[in-house]
Amino acid sequence: MLNIHSRISKICSCLLMALLSTVQLTKAQTALHQYVDPRIGSEGLGRVFIGPSYPFGMVKPSPDCTPRPNSGWLPDPAPVTGFGQVHVSGTGGGPKYGNILIMPFKGSLTGTDHSSMRQDEKMALGYYSVLLKKHNIKTEITTAEKASFYKFTYPRNAAKALAIDAGFFLGEQPVPDSREAQQFVGSEIEVVSETEVRGYSRIRGGWNNGAAYTVFFDAVFDQPIKNFSTWKGTKFFPGIKQQFDSGQKTGVLLAFKNGSTDTVNVKVGISFVSEGKAKDNIDQEIPHWSFEKTLAQLQNSWNNLLSRIEIDKDATLDQKKMFYTGLYHTMLMPVNRTHENPLWSGDEPYYDDFYAIWDTFRSSNPLITLISPKRQTEIVNALLNIYKHDGYMPDARSGNYNGRTQGGSNAEVLIADAYAKGLTGINYSLALDAMLKDATVPPGGLEEKEGRGGLPEYNKLGYVPYHIPRAGNRTTDYAYEDYCIAMVAKGLGKNSVYQRFIKQADNWRNLWRDDYTQHGAKGFIMPKDSAGHWLDTIPYGISVNQHPTFTYTPLSREYPWYVCHWCGFFYEATSWEYSLSIPHQIPALVEKSGGKEAFKQRLDTLFDKKFYNVDNEPSFLTPCLYHWIGRPDLSTRRIRQIVTESFNTTSNGLPGNDDSGAMSSWLAFQMMGFYPNAGQSYYLLNSPMLKHVTLHQENGKDFTITAKNLSDKNMYIKSAKLNGKDYNQSWIEHANIVNGGQLLFEMTDKPTNWGTQILPPGKN
Amino acid sequence: MLNIHSRISKICSCLLMALLSTVQLTKAQTALHQYVDPRIGSEGLGRVFIGPSYPFGMVKPSPDCTPRPNSGWLPDPAPVTGFGQVHVSGTGGGPKYGNILIMPFKGSLTGTDHSSMRQDEKMALGYYSVLLKKHNIKTEITTAEKASFYKFTYPRNAAKALAIDAGFFLGEQPVPDSREAQQFVGSEIEVVSETEVRGYSRIRGGWNNGAAYTVFFDAVFDQPIKNFSTWKGTKFFPGIKQQFDSGQKTGVLLAFKNGSTDTVNVKVGISFVSEGKAKDNIDQEIPHWSFEKTLAQLQNSWNNLLSRIEIDKDATLDQKKMFYTGLYHTMLMPVNRTHENPLWSGDEPYYDDFYAIWDTFRSSNPLITLISPKRQTEIVNALLNIYKHDGYMPDARSGNYNGRTQGGSNAEVLIADAYAKGLTGINYSLALDAMLKDATVPPGGLEEKEGRGGLPEYNKLGYVPYHIPRAGNRTTDYAYEDYCIAMVAKGLGKNSVYQRFIKQADNWRNLWRDDYTQHGAKGFIMPKDSAGHWLDTIPYGISVNQHPTFTYTPLSREYPWYVCHWCGFFYEATSWEYSLSIPHQIPALVEKSGGKEAFKQRLDTLFDKKFYNVDNEPSFLTPCLYHWIGRPDLSTRRIRQIVTESFNTTSNGLPGNDDSGAMSSWLAFQMMGFYPNAGQSYYLLNSPMLKHVTLHQENGKDFTITAKNLSDKNMYIKSAKLNGKDYNQSWIEHANIVNGGQLLFEMTDKPTNWGTQILPPGKN
Repeated sequence: MLNIHSRISKICSCLLMALLSTVQLTKAQTALHQYVDPRIGSEGLGRVFIGPSYPFGMVKPSPDCTPRPNSGWLPDPAPVTGFGQVHVSGTGGGPKYGNILIMPFKGSLTGTDHSSMRQDEKMALGYYSVLLKKHNIKTEITTAEKASFYKFTYPRNAAKALAIDAGFFLGEQPVPDSREAQQFVGSEIEVVSETEVRGYSRIRGGWNNGAAYTVFFDAVFDQPIKNFSTWKGTKFFPGIKQQFDSGQKTGVLLAFKNGSTDTVNVKVGISFVSEGKAKDNIDQEIPHWSFEKTLAQLQNSWNNLLSRIEIDKDATLDQKKMFYTGLYHTMLMPVNRTHENPLWSGDEPYYDDFYAIWDTFRSSNPLITLISPKRQTEIVNALLNIYKHDGYMPDARSGNYNGRTQGGSNAEVLIADAYAKGLTGINYSLALDAMLKDATVPPGGLEEKEGRGGLPEYNKLGYVPYHIPRAGNRTTDYAYEDYCIAMVAKGLGKNSVYQRFIKQADNWRNLWRDDYTQHGAKGFIMPKDSAGHWLDTIPYGISVNQHPTFTYTPLSREYPWYVCHWCGFFYEATSWEYSLSIPHQIPALVEKSGGKEAFKQRLDTLFDKKFYNVDNEPSFLTPCLYHWIGRPDLSTRRIRQIVTESFNTTSNGLPGNDDSGAMSSWLAFQMMGFYPNAGQSYYLLNSPMLKHVTLHQENGKDFTITAKNLSDKNMYIKSAKLNGKDYNQSWIEHANIVNGGQLLFEMTDKPTNWGTQILPPGKN
Repeated sequence: MLNIHSRISKICSCLLMALLSTVQLTKAQTALHQYVDPRIGSEGLGRVFIGPSYPFGMVKPSPDCTPRPNSGWLPDPAPVTGFGQVHVSGTGGGPKYGNILIMPFKGSLTGTDHSSMRQDEKMALGYYSVLLKKHNIKTEITTAEKASFYKFTYPRNAAKALAIDAGFFLGEQPVPDSREAQQFVGSEIEVVSETEVRGYSRIRGGWNNGAAYTVFFDAVFDQPIKNFSTWKGTKFFPGIKQQFDSGQKTGVLLAFKNGSTDTVNVKVGISFVSEGKAKDNIDQEIPHWSFEKTLAQLQNSWNNLLSRIEIDKDATLDQKKMFYTGLYHTMLMPVNRTHENPLWSGDEPYYDDFYAIWDTFRSSNPLITLISPKRQTEIVNALLNIYKHDGYMPDARSGNYNGRTQGGSNAEVLIADAYAKGLTGINYSLALDAMLKDATVPPGGLEEKEGRGGLPEYNKLGYVPYHIPRAGNRTTDYAYEDYCIAMVAKGLGKNSVYQRFIKQADNWRNLWRDDYTQHGAKGFIMPKDSAGHWLDTIPYGISVNQHPTFTYTPLSREYPWYVCHWCGFFYEATSWEYSLSIPHQIPALVEKSGGKEAFKQRLDTLFDKKFYNVDNEPSFLTPCLYHWIGRPDLSTRRIRQIVTESFNTTSNGLPGNDDSGAMSSWLAFQMMGFYPNAGQSYYLLNSPMLKHVTLHQENGKDFTITAKNLSDKNMYIKSAKLNGKDYNQSWIEHANIVNGGQLLFEMTDKPTNWGTQILPPGKN
C-alpha cells in the first residue's frame, strides 16, 4: 500500500489504480498473509530469508546466527549473535550484507558479544519473535520499507542494555581479498542524544566480489539511555560519544534508564545514502511508536499484492501455504532502492539485489509481471538506468555493483519478455541499445562482472570454444538471448539487427554434436575447441607443467582441483540438462534428438534416471517439453511428481536455493496450471493443482482458470474452453490473460487427446 | 615534516631518515619557499592551482571564481563565488572537484550567492589573501594536509556571517550525463553545535567520467554562532539544524555572535571517508587556533623537500623562482590519500589524482624520484594497490576512479623507471603482473577508463588499425610499454615474457611508412587499416549514410564534426611529433629517417617550421634527440630557445597545461642540465642553466653539478669530469647520481667535440 501511496503523490493517473487496489483488498477479506509461512524453505538448500520484509523491501531485519550463513538465520540449536538489518533471500555462494547488528542484553556495559541461545521462536509474515534465553529477553521484530522496528521485553527490573555493532557482517574471512568473502572497510558510530544513535558500516566483496557499499543507520529508542560505552577495535570508551572511521570496527553499548517499563522499542532507519536519510526514513515511514500499526501496514501491503491471485477457497491449507508463500518469496527481491542510490540521483526507479537474473528470469520475473506489470516495468527501467550509468545491465547486482555472471546476459530476456507481453512505459529503443551493448562489446577482464564473457570468440566462431569457462551454457544462453534481441529489433523495425541476431539464434547448433549418443539419447551440446574439433578428452585449466585430461561425457560434473568450480563447461548442470535448454527452437531440438518418440524417450530417461536436477534453474522448463511432442499429459505427470517429491510446507520445503523466489515462483505457476517460456509471449497450459484461480489484474480485468472435476485421480485435461469456446491448444497467449476472461478445464483420470495436435510455438 | 613524522610511528628505521631530513632543513637556512610563486602559470594555458597546499596534499583550498574553471581561480576581474576545499592543478578537459564552498559575508541570512569582486590579492606558498570588496572582508587561507584554515577579518562591528555550500562544484552543466561534466548526486548539512557544522557533497563525472565520490567535511569556528538558516534546493529553514540528503543541494548560512573581535577563524577538515574522519583530521593536524603556526608547518614541510635540490646562490631571482616553483608544481599531485580510501582499508599507501600519468611519467615522476625516492615508491605501491583491488592500474585516476586513457598504459613506464633506478620496497613480481594485465587483458567497453584500447587488434596485427581511435599513438605507446615490460621481465628472470615483449617493442615499425616524405623528412607513423593497407585518404568515424574521407598527412590535426576530438589518429599531436616518440629505439629511428644528417634536418625542420609543440607532453624528449646524432650542442640550443621563448615568471609563464607539474618538471630538469628518458636508467646531459646544483639525496649522499664559466654566451660544454675523471659521454646513469659525486662541466661559447662520439643508449 505504501508503495502505491507514494506513486499517487507523483502521478495523478495512478489514483484510479490505487482505488481499484483498495477495492480488491476489501473484496479479498481473507487475510492472505496468514497463509505465508516464512519457515518454508528456511532449512536445507532453500536458504530463504525468514524475517519481516515489505514487498521488494530494502530493509530485511533477521536474527544472525553463528556461523553467519547466507540468510543470517540458522535453525536451533545455534546461538543468535544479534539482529542485522539487511539480508538477501535464497542465495548460494559467499554471503552478502548482514549489516548493523543490534542485540539486547542485561547487566553491565562490557563485551561486544552477547550471543544467546533461544526458545519460542515465531515467524509470520512481517513478524518475528524469540526469547533470548541467556538473559530471558523477548525480542519482537517488524519492519517498514526502509526502517525496522524492534520491541525488546526485558525481565522485570533488569538492567536493560543494548549493543549496536556497526562492524558486523556476514561471510567474514581472515584472509584479505578472499574470493566471495565480504571484507571490512570501515565503520563509524555516534551517540547523538539520549534517544538516538547513528553511524554506518562499509563493506566490500561478497558473492559478487563487489566494490564497497555503505549501510548508514539511525536508531531511535522510546526510552532514554542513562550511560553508554562506545568501542573501536577491542577498546571501550565509556561516555565518549563518537568513534570516527579509522578502518576499524566500531559500536556502542547502551544502558537504558530504570523506569516504569520493562519494554524498549527501537526503530532502526537504514539508508544507502546517508545517516540523515536513514533518520528521515524513520520519520517518513514510522512517525509513531506503534509496533502493531507498523505490522498492520506491512500486512496490508502484502495482502494487496497476494490478493491479486485468488485461489480456490476449498484448497487445502498446505496448498494455500505453498502457493501464497511462493508469491511472497517471489516478491522479496530485487529490492526497491529508488532515492537510495549513492551513485547517481533522480526519481527514476532504482533497484538492487538482482541475485541473479540468471535465476529469476525464468519464473520470478514472469510471475511479478502477472501480479504487477507496473512493478516489472519499474524493474526493467531500473536495469536500463543501470545500463545508462554503469555501462552494462547487470546479470546479477548487489551492493550497488554489477556481478557476477553465471551464463548469459539474461537481462535481455527480461526486456524481450516485457516487449512480448506489451509492458508500456519502457524506452525499448534504449533497451535495444542495452541489449546490443551486451551482444557486441566484450566486457574485457570484467567478464565475471557483466556483459558476455567469450564474446569475441562467440561472435567470430558462432560458439564459445572450450578453453573459455562455461563455454557450453554461455553458447546456449547467448543463442537464446540473440533470439530475444532479434525479436525486439523486429518489433522496432530494425531489420538489419533482426537479420543478424535471428541468424545467431541458431548458434547453439554449432555445439550440438549430432552423432553423440548416451543412454539412448542422440545429440548433445559438447565441447569444441577454437579450431572446430570436438573434444572427447578435455584439458582443464591452464598449467605450464601439468597437462591432465579426462573424458568428458554429457553427465560430467567433475572439475579438477586446480580450476575454479565455475570454470567447467557448464555452470551448475550437465549436458543432459543444458542440451534441452533451447527455449526458442524446441521443435528443432525434437528433430535433432531423432523425432518425437526419441525425444520422449530422452525426456523419460532424464527423469527416470534422475539426470534431471530439481534443485536448480537450468531445468525449470524441461518438464513442459513433452508439450512440444503433443503429450501435455506427460508434462503434467512429471510436474506433479516433482511437486509431490520435492516441495512441501516444512522448513525443508524447497529442493534448492530459492534464489530470490525462483524455486517458489516455479511452484506457484505449476500450481495454477500454466508456465511461462520467459522472453516469449505465451504460457504452456498444464493441469492445474487448484480448482480455481482468479487473476485480479492491475488493469482491472479478471482472468479465471477453473478445473472442473479436478481430483488427485482426475489429473488430466479432457477438454478446455476459453471464454466459452473450445480451446484445444496446450498454450495460451499473455494477451488472452491481459484481456480478461475464463479458461475452463474439464478434468479426467486418463490421458486424452487434448493438446496433442496443435503444438506450442518454436522455430524449426 | 608531518608526513615523515607519521612514518616514524610505523617504522623505526625511518627515524634516522627523519633526523637527516631535519638536519638538511637546518642546513638550508634560506627559506626556499619564498622563491615559490603560485602565480606562475596561473593564467593562460598553465591552469596551475594557486592556493595553499602541502606537498601531495589532499586539501587544496582556493577561491572559486565564476565561471568555475579547472583550478577554480580566475584572474581579476571575475567574481569570487567562494572558497572550495579540493582542487587539482594544471588540468585540461572537464573540471573536477571544487567541493565544500565557504564564503564570508555580512548582514542578514538570505541568499546562497555572496559572490564578490576583489582587490589586494596575495599569493605565496601556503598562503593566500584577498579583500572581498562587496563587504570589505579580508580572507586569509593556509592549510594542513587534510584540513584548511581560514581567517576572515570583517569590517568593525559588521554582522559577521558565513555561507557553507555543500552543493557547489566545478564544471556543472545543465544537461544530465554530459560528457566530462561533474554531476550533482547529493549533499547533506548539519549544524552540530554553535561552533561546528558538518556534512558532505557527493558528485560524479568530471574529466574522467568517474563514478560518484563523496567529500565529507567538518568545519569548526573560534567564534560561536548566534543563529543560522540551513537550505535545501531553493528553500531556507531558519533554525533547522539538519538537511538530509534527498538528492538536492544543501547548505547553511551562519551569523556569528557580536563580540570583541572582528575576526573569525574557521578550520575545515576534509575526508573522503566520513564526517567523523574529517573532524579527526582537524584534531590531528591543527589542534590549536594559530594561523601562523599552521602556515609555518606547511612552509617547513615544503622547505624540507625544496632544499633537497640546492642551486647556485648567485642565480638570478627569476631563475630561483622558475626553478623552485617548478619543484613546487611537481609535488602538488598525485595526492596522498592514505587512510582516506572509501573503497578498501589498510595502511598501504593510497594516492589519488593521477591526472594523468600520460602527462607525468616523462618528467614529473622522474623528478619526484630524485627528490624523494621513498615518495615515488609510495606512489608506485599505490598504483599496485589499485591494480590489486580495482583490476587495472590507472593511466589517470581522480575521485577514486580510474580513467581516462589518452594513449598507452603509462603506469608501466613508472614501474620500469622504478626498477631501472633500483627503487626498493616494491613487489616487482606483482608489478609485472599488473603490467601484463594491461598488455594481455582487453578492458572491453571500458577502454576509455583503463587498460589498453584496441589490444586484441594490436596483439594480433602488431599495430592498432586505423578504425580504432588514437591508433597512431596507441601503437607507439604500447610498443614502448612493451619494451618496459620486457626490461622488468628480463630483470626478474622471466625469459619467455621478455622474449615476447622485446619483440613487441618493435611494433612501432608496423606503422612506420618508410616511403612517405614530407618537408624533406622521410618515414612517418601513418594510418593503416586492419587488412594492412596504408591509408592516404581516411574515413573518419562510422556513419551509415555519409562516407566522407579526406587526405591524411603527417601534419593533420583535423577531426570532422561527427567524431570526438580524441578519436583521431593521434591524441593531441601530429605525426611529425609522434613519429619521433620512440624513446627506446632512437638509433633505429635515426636510421629509418635516413641517417644522421637526414635526422638533423628533420629535427631542424620540426623546430624551425614550428611543427614542434611546446605546450604538450608528446614532444618533451624531442629537443634532446640531437644527442643521438652526436650533437648535444644542438639539443642545448633548442632547449634554451624553448625556455627563453615559452617559460618565465609571469602568470603566463607556462606554455601549456601544467598537468600536475609536467611542464614545470621539464623546466626544472632542463635548468639543472640533465633530462630523463623515463622508464630507462639514464639521463641526457645538457648544458646547465645554473652554475651550481647540489642534489641532497634521501640516502644522505650529495651529487653536485658545476658549470664552470657558464654565461649566456658560454652555453656549450667544452669538457666534463665525473668525480675528477674525464667524462665524454652526453648521458649519465641514475646510479652515478645515487652514489653521490661531482660532475664538473667546463663551458665555452662554441660547439665542441664533447659528447659527439659516445652516443646515448638505444636499440637499433
